[in-house]
Amino acid sequence: MAHQDARWMRAAIALSLRGKGRTAPNPNVGCIIVRDGVVVGRGWTQPGGRPHAEAITIAQAADRAQGATAYVTLEPCFHLSPRGPRCVDVLSRAGVRRVAIALRDPDPRTDGQSIAWLREHGVAVDVGVLEDEARAAMAGFLLRQTSGRPFVTLKLGLSLDGCIAMADGSSRWITGPIARAHAHLERTRHEAILVGRGTWWADAPKLDVRLPGLEDRSPRRIMLGHGDAPDGWDLLSEPAGIAALPGVEYLLVEGGAQAAAAFLRADLVDRLLLYRAPILLGGGKPALGDVGLADLAQAHGRWALADSRMLGEDRMEVYLRTRSH
Amino acid sequence: MAHQDARWMRAAIALSLRGKGRTAPNPNVGCIIVRDGVVVGRGWTQPGGRPHAEAITIAQAADRAQGATAYVTLEPCFHLSPRGPRCVDVLSRAGVRRVAIALRDPDPRTDGQSIAWLREHGVAVDVGVLEDEARAAMAGFLLRQTSGRPFVTLKLGLSLDGCIAMADGSSRWITGPIARAHAHLERTRHEAILVGRGTWWADAPKLDVRLPGLEDRSPRRIMLGHGDAPDGWDLLSEPAGIAALPGVEYLLVEGGAQAAAAFLRADLVDRLLLYRAPILLGGGKPALGDVGLADLAQAHGRWALADSRMLGEDRMEVYLRTRSH
Ligand SMILES: NC(=O)c1ccc[n+]([C@@H]2O[C@H](COP(=O)([O-])OP(=O)(O)OC[C@H]3O[C@@H](n4cnc5c(N)ncnc54)[C@H](OP(=O)(O)O)[C@@H]3O)[C@@H](O)[C@H]2O)c1
Ligand SMILES: NC(=O)c1ccc[n+]([C@@H]2O[C@H](COP(=O)([O-])OP(=O)(O)OC[C@H]3O[C@@H](n4cnc5c(N)ncnc54)[C@H](OP(=O)(O)O)[C@@H]3O)[C@@H](O)[C@H]2O)c1
Repeated sequence: MAHQDARWMRAAIALSLRGKGRTAPNPNVGCIIVRDGVVVGRGWTQPGGRPHAEAITIAQAADRAQGATAYVTLEPCFHLSPRGPRCVDVLSRAGVRRVAIALRDPDPRTDGQSIAWLREHGVAVDVGVLEDEARAAMAGFLLRQTSGRPFVTLKLGLSLDGCIAMADGSSRWITGPIARAHAHLERTRHEAILVGRGTWWADAPKLDVRLPGLEDRSPRRIMLGHGDAPDGWDLLSEPAGIAALPGVEYLLVEGGAQAAAAFLRADLVDRLLLYRAPILLGGGKPALGDVGLADLAQAHGRWALADSRMLGEDRMEVYLRTRSH
Repeated sequence: MAHQDARWMRAAIALSLRGKGRTAPNPNVGCIIVRDGVVVGRGWTQPGGRPHAEAITIAQAADRAQGATAYVTLEPCFHLSPRGPRCVDVLSRAGVRRVAIALRDPDPRTDGQSIAWLREHGVAVDVGVLEDEARAAMAGFLLRQTSGRPFVTLKLGLSLDGCIAMADGSSRWITGPIARAHAHLERTRHEAILVGRGTWWADAPKLDVRLPGLEDRSPRRIMLGHGDAPDGWDLLSEPAGIAALPGVEYLLVEGGAQAAAAFLRADLVDRLLLYRAPILLGGGKPALGDVGLADLAQAHGRWALADSRMLGEDRMEVYLRTRSH
């Protein structure tokens, strides 16, 4: 049973990622409904945060939800909203017999109340199925709740020797087409992208998503710097300003060296997304400006490898912060 | 048969690597003798280049070499030497019935003559078994023959953002104990290690092998720079000077940034050995000085990934040059 639960919850988490970077201010939740070992419904939070994953999934399952088990990556919502019904009601009315929940919702309007309510209404509830994985999949929403700011990924396209451009500033292209396409896919999973004024000046980047069928998924553009922002861009005058960005749960910082260092100095980077090309640019522009370390020992123990794979000839690596704030 | 041949030759190549960096001016050869599917002798070229792999192996096999097959990673030597018998005689006298050879010896004193001689004397000979692998395993000897210089590995211990030290020059430690032990093992496979004067000045490195049982395998120490060399060191005033280093088939360049760049600019690096720690040193010392690229496109297509693995928390990567000289 525990084994089966993990299997279905893993599927629900995979579904939840389809909404990543598009559901703010709501969490990107995934849901799957299973009856007699057969999936009868699957859904995820829709762009803008509604409908919720549970509503979509129950609509799909219809009658087949009767007596089934629902796997949801976050505790169903308990609060009444003009934008839709509350998910505890939806699940209970559909006749679901058991709900497996990865994570209790920290939002004070829910925070365990749905779990209690479902149990009172005769629905079996298990909490904590693949909790860590679900937490990672909703990191943006959770960080908003706990720290009042979005989850920040710092992306860098590097040479083996850690340069992000030639000495003259040219950086097209360091990585190959597969890595660049992957970086565009990553953009779709963020509500906003930020670069420093220097990068805007040097590269005039569009920061849009140029993948067939995903062109409409281009995130908001933000510039770090002072003075005027270009047309269609927002301006942020310091990294700490990200707390005030409404509707942003996932922020992608795409450089350059000074902007990246400013976020690191402010301890506002949660995830490193590195694309490293098999080239040497000796004497080029270093990836990072001063991050303010007192000594070498201080640099250690901050990043844990979470993913590593080849994208064509380039290696992608993902590191997650290990230290809490 | 071809399948079995590859299997035994692979074993012979593995043996040959035990001599790597210790056999100059001779090649590091591996040999294995097989009779009725059973290994009856195995050997590799000894330090200083004698005895040859074949002599060791035949002595081990003794009578059991009768009618057996010998696998050697390089054509047995044909020339008479005061330092020992020629290997064609050794093999033929022992009664070996067949010799499988990975690579014809480019040394003009042999260069196919042993192959012809063995055939004339009724010994079956196959040439070209795992030739590429054997070539890679003897790259130092072959490069000496063809280009008159040693095979050069550039080793760098890096942060994720490509720094080899803090801004103040401190670099102890960037990588962890497993990566550092591996780097010491690499030292045993080189006849000489070179660093720039700046590194000697900053770190006063001993460049010895501090692995239990391998302390006597410490290579010669060479400094790149001008003026006086420290006691026990040799001095080289330019990278091209490596051609004149006697008894060096494998040279390890261990930095720093200027010395490494000088070797790259001179197109004298055959292999990159990178140890990358999961840390950011933003604002530290970049791995390389100017390598003299005209544009970004020129940086591409020069390096091919040959090995990649985790050593504790650090990633080791090996790249081989793709372009010929
Ligand atoms: N390979 C890659 O992945 C990649 C990615 C991006 C960029 N690049 C390259 O990187 C180069 C540009 O990098 P860069 O370091 O010169 O410029 P940058 O980091 O893009 O921008 C620097 C600007 O950011 C603003 N800034 C920095 N820290 C700040 C802080 N704490 N608070 C407020 N504003 C802050 C300042 O703007 P104000 O002057 O307005 O105050 C500063 O001038 C270009 O050559 C580009 O091609 C490469
Ligand atoms: N993490 C690592 O793997 C690693 C490895 C080594 C060093 N490091 C760090 O790197 C730093 C030292 O690097 P560095 O770049 O300052 O110094 P360096 O490269 O070790 O030495 C520079 C010196 O090398 C000589 N040199 C350079 N190019 C030459 C050429 N073409 N011909 C002749 N001589 C040449 C010159 O000596 P003369 O002045 O005598 O002419 C020059 O001053 C230290 O902080 C050290 O800790 C780190």
